[in-house]
Amino acid sequence: MYTLGPEFVDVTWGAGGAQSELTLQICTTAQSVAGLETCMHLTCTNMPREKIDWALKNAKQAGIQNILALRGDPPHGHSDWKAIDTGFAYAIDLVKYIREQYGDYFCIGVAGYPEGHIENSDRQSDFDHFVEKCKLADYVVTQLFYDCDLYLEWVKRVRAAGVQIPILPGIMPIQMYGGFKRMTTLSKTSVPKEVDAALEPIKDDDKAVKEYGVKLAIEMCNKLRAAGQKGFHFYCMNLEKSVRLILEGLEFVAPVEVAKPLPWNPSLAQNRKNETVRPIFWRNRTRSYVLRTEAWDDFPNGRWGDSRSPAYGDFDGYGVSLKFTPEEATKIWGTPSKIGDIHELFSQFCKGNLAGLPWCDKMAPESEGIQNPLSDVNLKGFLTINSQPAVDGAPSNDARYGWGPKNGFVYQKAYIEFFVSPAALDKLIKKLSVDPFITYYAVNKEGDMKTNVQSDTPNAVTWGVFPGQEIVQPTVVDGTSFMAWKDEAFELWMQWARVYPASSPSTKLIQGISDSWFLMNVVHNNYRDAGAIWEIFD
Amino acid sequence: MYTLGPEFVDVTWGAGGAQSELTLQICTTAQSVAGLETCMHLTCTNMPREKIDWALKNAKQAGIQNILALRGDPPHGHSDWKAIDTGFAYAIDLVKYIREQYGDYFCIGVAGYPEGHIENSDRQSDFDHFVEKCKLADYVVTQLFYDCDLYLEWVKRVRAAGVQIPILPGIMPIQMYGGFKRMTTLSKTSVPKEVDAALEPIKDDDKAVKEYGVKLAIEMCNKLRAAGQKGFHFYCMNLEKSVRLILEGLEFVAPVEVAKPLPWNPSLAQNRKNETVRPIFWRNRTRSYVLRTEAWDDFPNGRWGDSRSPAYGDFDGYGVSLKFTPEEATKIWGTPSKIGDIHELFSQFCKGNLAGLPWCDKMAPESEGIQNPLSDVNLKGFLTINSQPAVDGAPSNDARYGWGPKNGFVYQKAYIEFFVSPAALDKLIKKLSVDPFITYYAVNKEGDMKTNVQSDTPNAVTWGVFPGQEIVQPTVVDGTSFMAWKDEAFELWMQWARVYPASSPSTKLIQGISDSWFLMNVVHNNYRDAGAIWEIFD
Repeated sequence: MYTLGPEFVDVTWGAGGAQSELTLQICTTAQSVAGLETCMHLTCTNMPREKIDWALKNAKQAGIQNILALRGDPPHGHSDWKAIDTGFAYAIDLVKYIREQYGDYFCIGVAGYPEGHIENSDRQSDFDHFVEKCKLADYVVTQLFYDCDLYLEWVKRVRAAGVQIPILPGIMPIQMYGGFKRMTTLSKTSVPKEVDAALEPIKDDDKAVKEYGVKLAIEMCNKLRAAGQKGFHFYCMNLEKSVRLILEGLEFVAPVEVAKPLPWNPSLAQNRKNETVRPIFWRNRTRSYVLRTEAWDDFPNGRWGDSRSPAYGDFDGYGVSLKFTPEEATKIWGTPSKIGDIHELFSQFCKGNLAGLPWCDKMAPESEGIQNPLSDVNLKGFLTINSQPAVDGAPSNDARYGWGPKNGFVYQKAYIEFFVSPAALDKLIKKLSVDPFITYYAVNKEGDMKTNVQSDTPNAVTWGVFPGQEIVQPTVVDGTSFMAWKDEAFELWMQWARVYPASSPSTKLIQGISDSWFLMNVVHNNYRDAGAIWEIFD
Repeated sequence: MYTLGPEFVDVTWGAGGAQSELTLQICTTAQSVAGLETCMHLTCTNMPREKIDWALKNAKQAGIQNILALRGDPPHGHSDWKAIDTGFAYAIDLVKYIREQYGDYFCIGVAGYPEGHIENSDRQSDFDHFVEKCKLADYVVTQLFYDCDLYLEWVKRVRAAGVQIPILPGIMPIQMYGGFKRMTTLSKTSVPKEVDAALEPIKDDDKAVKEYGVKLAIEMCNKLRAAGQKGFHFYCMNLEKSVRLILEGLEFVAPVEVAKPLPWNPSLAQNRKNETVRPIFWRNRTRSYVLRTEAWDDFPNGRWGDSRSPAYGDFDGYGVSLKFTPEEATKIWGTPSKIGDIHELFSQFCKGNLAGLPWCDKMAPESEGIQNPLSDVNLKGFLTINSQPAVDGAPSNDARYGWGPKNGFVYQKAYIEFFVSPAALDKLIKKLSVDPFITYYAVNKEGDMKTNVQSDTPNAVTWGVFPGQEIVQPTVVDGTSFMAWKDEAFELWMQWARVYPASSPSTKLIQGISDSWFLMNVVHNNYRDAGAIWEIFD
């Protein structure tokens, strides 16, 4: 979703213990790991005041600042909604309570029903309640609808009643004919005749229904847009593909400066809002990085600020695990028995022929231009897990390398990180020692460090120059971080080794690499010579 | 001296009240304004303990960390040296006292006499005292000499006696025949026959004597260098021209990274050692800048660090005055009576035809390449006082633009600062408003500010990219600093106005500019298009 550049994402409230925990976890991950502005739903259903308190406290702690306050559906297995003791009967009560407890801290959204609430047959009292609710809220998201005229009429009435807050129409792309029918019937949603007519002949063709759903949503959005609508809320229902196609169809492509304010996704956790620097090592393991730096003080007063003291949290328990089951892993990586097999696997990964490696799911898009030389390096026995090409001032809106505000220029020093055998390392270091542009760190599992870097200050490997700003340098290489990272990097070999039966040839081979090889990073500091980094492997 | 790149400079001790103050002032200016590592001489002559305490305390406070501890000459008008009550009799007593009071804080130098101390005819006891003294000291500077063999012999003896600290030979270029004769006779310095022979025929030709002095010093240094000598101490006696010629003859040219660690001369005051950023406005008035920021906390925790609070000290009393007397000023600038005269003066200054303007002594060397367009801009009525051309990644050892460590690249955004009439300002702002690469501030004497900059963070206008480092961004433009600077800038018009009789046409003209014009700075943020800045004046 991040790459689609939404203004915010929202996560439905999972009532009940484990479900509520899950909602909070998803929200926290979206907000602080993926850096998506997140809105958490909160419902009155089966929620005594204590649970509401608990949910709001945790949401605030996680940096969530947006709540969609809803009454909610009746509990599972019930057809009528009933308030519980010490709970709330209407969404407006919940909104009032949040405002009482948290003042303006939360941005509170409420639901709007362009066709009226199905449980209230008195349309006027229904509408009046809604207007009352809006007086306390910050924005409205509507129930799904398919009749744009009804929506636009309703918005007019709402505005005429003095409601000024933003209203987002709820667009639900049709995914399956059966589901669509069931839902519109249940919620008594008007379906324009032409929609029914278009669906009837294709109702048994799931693919065609989906395609029509996309087409219809595009038409609806264009119609609403023409009528002055500024924002849209899509009900993805975890089926984000249709939404992606709709956004493409609408040409709602987020400009580079919105989609990529920095070369990595900034966390939106409250304490990280000034975080502008990260080490390059965790580029493929953002979650682990964010969690291991969670305890740091305000950024940039953590590492790379004035105080360089904060230590990385322990990496155990932060998901140092393969993203594949042993079965999947064996299918992807086979049963390597000699070092050449490993070279080949890494090389194939660089060419895009492998579903992943323990250190990375897929090649970063910006590595596309260097697939071939990278693949060759791996065949030579330097097992790469992270790299970036040199960039000498690409425009900040460049499709591949761009990030940050408009009218700027972005730069990168060529970077490559790989595992290397002790013998090959010695040869390489001898070779690198004559090049004043090379800086490197190499370390084995035990922590024996070899480096030609004398200072303990970081090396900026990505930076951007923008009108009216200081230079932004969001990615660095530094020795202390590298030491923290190497524990994770070597542990991933061990995870791979455990895929195979103990004492099998594959386990021995992989464990041998983990025990004796070095993890090395090399920066070529002459970013104006894009090809220079490859010469070190000649 | 700064441009010659000395390891350190030293300043003789002026015994007595005003003289001592002067020594401290010179040392402080050299250390914290010019950024030269400074060694302060301290003598025992007429210095009771209280005065020594006062001198050391003030030296430390000024950031001086080097003391040359000497007994000193007899007081003026006396031929014998006599210790005073509560004073010290020998340099070694002074060294001991400094160590007792300050431990290792000061780096302490002592004098060495390759030909023996003239007041001690017992050569052996003289030598033994010297060796004792060296045990407490950090380095030796020798008395002047002209016989290199004597010096080299003496160094051998000193080393044989176990002295390991660095020894710097004292080289005094011959400046005038009379002075040379008087001094060598007084101090019983051996003069090799060939030196006497060379001087005899030219002794009445001051210029020839000076040239021979330079030639001789070069020969001596080369001889000592060949014998393993690593450093040299030149007695400049405020006649630095000979020393400059000697250094050129020896090809002792400081490499760019030593001579220019940053594009401005970093202060060496203790509390400023981490200062890496300054606003561009004071580029031609370093002294005023350093003094007005003296009260700031540790850099970069002052402005541009995390705390942006420190205010500039009041500019009054920091030498906001012309560097010329009214007579000199009238000679240089004449008596302008119409605005065109002022345009012409500024234009001539840009061409290098004027000794100075109130805001600047001379054109910065890097402005040489832009003299002509700059001169034209002034003729159009934009009276420039500060500017830098755009630089798109010059090597860090570039003779004109280079600064900082080796193997780096330096950048600049084009910058121009000028006074402009209100009418011309309005036209210019209208023109600039369509260019997304332009940022500007304009302010009049009263503080009415016009700007297109929305954020209050600084704009980096000079930066460098170096191997293994973060990006260094030593020069910035920011609104708050600009407001502090404008008071100085406008006051300099008033100083100029006062050169002429009150109510004379020149005074009225200049005062009129000061009262109604704006001071404006413009940054062209596209540093890759070197000529773009000039288009704004078309």
